[in-house]
Amino acid sequence: MDIQRHAPKRDEVLIEVLYCGVCHSDIHQVNNDWRNTIYPCVPGHEIIGKIAETGDSVTAFKKGDIVGVGCMIDSCKQCKSCTSGEEQFCLGPVGMTMTYNGYWKPGDTDFNTFGGFSTHIIANEKFVLRIPAELDLQSAAPILCAGVTTYSPLKMYMKKDAKVGIVGIGGLGHMAVMIAKAMGAHVTAITTKEEKREAAMELGADAVLISEDEEAMKGHEVTFDFILITIPEEFDINPYICLLGPRGTLITVGLLGPYKSPTDNNEVAKYSRTVGASIIGSIRETQEVLDFCAKHKIAPHVQMIKMDEINEAFDKIKDEEVRFRFVIDMKSMNGEI
Amino acid sequence: MDIQRHAPKRDEVLIEVLYCGVCHSDIHQVNNDWRNTIYPCVPGHEIIGKIAETGDSVTAFKKGDIVGVGCMIDSCKQCKSCTSGEEQFCLGPVGMTMTYNGYWKPGDTDFNTFGGFSTHIIANEKFVLRIPAELDLQSAAPILCAGVTTYSPLKMYMKKDAKVGIVGIGGLGHMAVMIAKAMGAHVTAITTKEEKREAAMELGADAVLISEDEEAMKGHEVTFDFILITIPEEFDINPYICLLGPRGTLITVGLLGPYKSPTDNNEVAKYSRTVGASIIGSIRETQEVLDFCAKHKIAPHVQMIKMDEINEAFDKIKDEEVRFRFVIDMKSMNGEI
Repeated sequence: MDIQRHAPKRDEVLIEVLYCGVCHSDIHQVNNDWRNTIYPCVPGHEIIGKIAETGDSVTAFKKGDIVGVGCMIDSCKQCKSCTSGEEQFCLGPVGMTMTYNGYWKPGDTDFNTFGGFSTHIIANEKFVLRIPAELDLQSAAPILCAGVTTYSPLKMYMKKDAKVGIVGIGGLGHMAVMIAKAMGAHVTAITTKEEKREAAMELGADAVLISEDEEAMKGHEVTFDFILITIPEEFDINPYICLLGPRGTLITVGLLGPYKSPTDNNEVAKYSRTVGASIIGSIRETQEVLDFCAKHKIAPHVQMIKMDEINEAFDKIKDEEVRFRFVIDMKSMNGEI
Repeated sequence: MDIQRHAPKRDEVLIEVLYCGVCHSDIHQVNNDWRNTIYPCVPGHEIIGKIAETGDSVTAFKKGDIVGVGCMIDSCKQCKSCTSGEEQFCLGPVGMTMTYNGYWKPGDTDFNTFGGFSTHIIANEKFVLRIPAELDLQSAAPILCAGVTTYSPLKMYMKKDAKVGIVGIGGLGHMAVMIAKAMGAHVTAITTKEEKREAAMELGADAVLISEDEEAMKGHEVTFDFILITIPEEFDINPYICLLGPRGTLITVGLLGPYKSPTDNNEVAKYSRTVGASIIGSIRETQEVLDFCAKHKIAPHVQMIKMDEINEAFDKIKDEEVRFRFVIDMKSMNGEI
């Protein structure tokens, strides 16, 4: 499909997309699972690219710079959230501008943004990330969403030496295991699948807990300081709450809908636990996690695909047949590979 | 009914009960709503009394001291929770010893504790509170449960000048309004009942929000920093989550069962909100809230009753016909009044 990008305005840059990660939310969005998809929909919000053109007032970047774009490309930049560096909670008229399926500017509500499954993309310079030289460009793309989405709650809630559980060892979960480990936690990978045990240990997990093993789950009750759940589909939160120790915190990322059954508040209250959720992270945190991954030599585990393999990739993600993230090489768009 | 109290052991005290508050949980417990009641059941865990006898090693109290007992009378005193001053989360073999419907000591699981609806009670000296001289003894009793149950999460999660919502203006809620106000918050009382508006304002609330007024609720969405819910029955948590601003926290106290419907995690995630629950508080916090109430001249609003009026009082509490707490004058047990 041909789409038209506008020329970069004053504080915008035009980026040539080199690589784009495939996130589970891309599948939800193209299938309209959240009932808010605007068609035509061009997904993709884990973008590594090269500056092709800069607006007149852009000073932070110049043509040829290697950069990244995550889940947002703009916001009102004036509200309490934006001015305190949490653009992801923009309280402006239309909220933050999502990289795709978003609105370009307040009032301009019939103009849908198009994401990174594309040769080029436009973003406000404040929403463009620097890619540290130490990072491998092909594998770095998932840091822009899977990385920051897990880094943000881990940094906010996790204490050093904490006993941490990462539930769901997929695109987000595999990043969470590596990041939590690098932050100094004792990490238990919690998965339904015995087959993922080995992969989880290779990622650096200290232990693996199989959630379908009721006895094993019982043995871990009231022991975790922090649990991060990365399951992208409806699930029952209650068995995970029981794993938390006194004043323990559980954060869900990736589920944008109701839990499968009502939360049993008795279990939450009994040990004054908290159950929250988190969505992506700020631009500051996105830069932080890029730098953190460079420093700790953390690279997402990716499998490169061509653009025309995307439907097959979607099916494989749904069937959990990817270790752990597909990344599209955009040279395949131009027929160069 | 005649019950036998054992003589105080080494580190225990025998207390003559002067006044005992009537908590909504007393009703849940005697009706076996939580399916864990051991009969016969003697409720009562908001106790103001006088030391009648002390065990051999007791040094903190002497005969005649005016003291308080809350929801716990003992714990293992050795686990991680107990040694860090959070006895309410005791990880010992049977957990903390509840003031009633609890177990006296590890292994002694057929010995049920009896609460404060009684002439005397036994407690470990570490679980006995000093009642500041400034407090009025008749009205102080509810501080021991309603007070600490609301003080603990308010102190933990609320920042000064925060916009705070207190949902449910009953026994717990009326304490929460007064405590939050004294802590420096902007307090909105949130109630289903227009009739409670005046009482809430008299307690010191800055504003009142009627939760059945959908338009008013909509107008307050994404504005609260902290919400404390004191509703003692099953309810839908989702409308309250929408009231929280970015990174806002909601804590439920008083509900020991599941919410009415599954939590919509989309609403929680969208602004990285947290939804937790809290149960009573530690002994240290109980002493703190007694001292806090003395300092800020906060007195629970109570209606005194005689012991033989208890069934009528239970009915009135269920019908929300109490402003805001019944307290039993124990002289009525001996026929003195």
